[in-house]
Amino acid sequence: MNDLCEKIAQLRERVRQQKPLLHHITNFVVMNDTANVTLHIGGLPVMAHAREEVAEMVGAAGALVLNPGTLTPSWVESMLVAGRRANELGIPIVLDPVGAGATSLRTESNLRLLDELRIAVVRGNSGEIGALTGLGGVVKGVETVVEVEEPEEVAKALARRYGLTAAITGPRDVVTDGERVAVVDNGHPMLKTITGTGCSATTMIAAFVAVEHDYVLAATAGLACYGLAAELAATQATGPASFKVALFDAIYNLSTEQILEGTRVQYL
Amino acid sequence: MNDLCEKIAQLRERVRQQKPLLHHITNFVVMNDTANVTLHIGGLPVMAHAREEVAEMVGAAGALVLNPGTLTPSWVESMLVAGRRANELGIPIVLDPVGAGATSLRTESNLRLLDELRIAVVRGNSGEIGALTGLGGVVKGVETVVEVEEPEEVAKALARRYGLTAAITGPRDVVTDGERVAVVDNGHPMLKTITGTGCSATTMIAAFVAVEHDYVLAATAGLACYGLAAELAATQATGPASFKVALFDAIYNLSTEQILEGTRVQYL
Amino acid sequence: MNDLCEKIAQLRERVRQQKPLLHHITNFVVMNDTANVTLHIGGLPVMAHAREEVAEMVGAAGALVLNPGTLTPSWVESMLVAGRRANELGIPIVLDPVGAGATSLRTESNLRLLDELRIAVVRGNSGEIGALTGLGGVVKGVETVVEVEEPEEVAKALARRYGLTAAITGPRDVVTDGERVAVVDNGHPMLKTITGTGCSATTMIAAFVAVEHDYVLAATAGLACYGLAAELAATQATGPASFKVALFDAIYNLSTEQILEGTRVQYL
Repeated sequence: MNDLCEKIAQLRERVRQQKPLLHHITNFVVMNDTANVTLHIGGLPVMAHAREEVAEMVGAAGALVLNPGTLTPSWVESMLVAGRRANELGIPIVLDPVGAGATSLRTESNLRLLDELRIAVVRGNSGEIGALTGLGGVVKGVETVVEVEEPEEVAKALARRYGLTAAITGPRDVVTDGERVAVVDNGHPMLKTITGTGCSATTMIAAFVAVEHDYVLAATAGLACYGLAAELAATQATGPASFKVALFDAIYNLSTEQILEGTRVQYL
Repeated sequence: MNDLCEKIAQLRERVRQQKPLLHHITNFVVMNDTANVTLHIGGLPVMAHAREEVAEMVGAAGALVLNPGTLTPSWVESMLVAGRRANELGIPIVLDPVGAGATSLRTESNLRLLDELRIAVVRGNSGEIGALTGLGGVVKGVETVVEVEEPEEVAKALARRYGLTAAITGPRDVVTDGERVAVVDNGHPMLKTITGTGCSATTMIAAFVAVEHDYVLAATAGLACYGLAAELAATQATGPASFKVALFDAIYNLSTEQILEGTRVQYL
Repeated sequence: MNDLCEKIAQLRERVRQQKPLLHHITNFVVMNDTANVTLHIGGLPVMAHAREEVAEMVGAAGALVLNPGTLTPSWVESMLVAGRRANELGIPIVLDPVGAGATSLRTESNLRLLDELRIAVVRGNSGEIGALTGLGGVVKGVETVVEVEEPEEVAKALARRYGLTAAITGPRDVVTDGERVAVVDNGHPMLKTITGTGCSATTMIAAFVAVEHDYVLAATAGLACYGLAAELAATQATGPASFKVALFDAIYNLSTEQILEGTRVQYL
């Protein structure tokens, strides 16, 4: 237990109290999952992608999640419309660049979102952040098959280039604003056996970003809570589907005591 | 136990015997869930939204579910095409006005469906029905954050204006055709911890509407069975995801005996 | 146990070792489920439908799954673009003609995919394959309500007409390339109580097709493993949702020993 764990426990309660609306423009695969994760951690989810309503919808949100995992150009346009309005209103945006590096449409669309919007936090796997920075890694589909060599430096490069907080998730999660670096050692290998765990981690980050302006702290808190819930779930699972049920239950039940005892986080 | 409970138990068996096809034009978040709920209660689900096929598809259906929870204008057009054909054929339509009140696109699209189609049943939360009637309530995302003051009167107002049966779900569900009023006191707070429970309640209503022309009775039956299943599930859950598994199992297993003993319904 | 069971057990390990990317252009109802099934059997899933990226994405794939279960004409166009590229690259295509026979859009779109692409395997229920061959059966929504009379002959007819391997699933699954016929007697009635089980069976086939050029063997292996997992799951379920959890766990855990002991397959 350290000061950081205590702050995370406080933030987890703050999410429960403030119940922030998390407006997602996200992919079809995980809409149900990330809506549930939003509720379980204490927020309110809404999935809305019509260009005709996203600017209005985001006005009520505590954070905007952009996840182009099943993108088309028109969905990216909606993301830009929502994102511009979020920027005007000072509502933080969390980007999950699913599959960046796998196709030029994915890489270019994510770079366009980064160029045209002020993003608060980007969370991706090592290959995705590598693709956005040009610093290595290989993505196949939506999975990193070759890791970047120095995740901390790659995350810092993205953070500095765009003035944001970057998180690379993996066995050790790295979170940085280009200067400060936090790491999270929570998590479990079973997370690799179900789809959408990266997307759910992004939603967890968004819940904390909605209630805390220190985005390095907020992203660290989201990832620590998620990884800890995975550890707790793994003790009860007999396979990936029972793991997922236990994971979602654990997110909902996550207590101050569990966070104080179980989160393994530090600033480097 | 009362006469109404017995009728509900009979209707539940009628759904199992007739296996009505429920044609859904619904949102991406709940498609999997509501397809499963349809099967569990005894119907056959189909999700089809292409303008080129909805009129043909709805011809085989026992009921049409319209749920613009992740709407775009083109999906609303498909709903109108399917709805007009359903009206021609006398196939009942059940509308779930997800997020009405949250954006003008949502409010106006739902009002357009109400204006241009003959709807059998509308089910929404208090704020959504308030938004459609102009009688109060506040919706944030897809959630009511300020309830209407007199749900019974608000439901009656919607029912009378459009000549339909209106249901407002909450701790006490209210169902009315503008004259008769039925209430359902089944349900459980855990329903608020998972996404799509309103949408699933709407699908439950549709299953009964497909086999029973008294729509107040049918909607009451659907909500009572759903609320009862939630109560049974809550006794076995350790969190929202295990609750959801138990809820879906309970819908499937719901027996005459459970319905006779457990439903708490009455006409006011 | 027979030679065929041993081959299936070997193929199941080959999927785990090769981790093929399965590029799905599939329906909204099952995207989450089939992504999970892909991971559980040992592959990597990606769901990508944008015309702008499908040709590039499929280049990395071990197999392409086309499932027009919630089709629109523009999705069918994307399927054609991805399919043509897959054909150029020699990447096998597995088609699931969801709801063929239910509307003319569905029947015609699936026939167009069959006419314009070189398909490796088609898997459907009896009515769907009947609709594609014109040899009987009735489909309501996405379900066969009248079976074809001679599934083996109907499957052979489709296989011969298009030079592919056809699988009709049901209590006894039939797999044929028009000459050889294999049957699978694994499976469980609980599969009818949840949505998307046909789609998941198709994904299972695709995982094996990606690692084995004998498509009759590959499809048989996929269906046998899926049916066996269902049998194992049914012993632990108290309803359809707990069955689904157990089914997905069982797919992941499926061992050589279980396959050798439990698969009931033969060439006729």
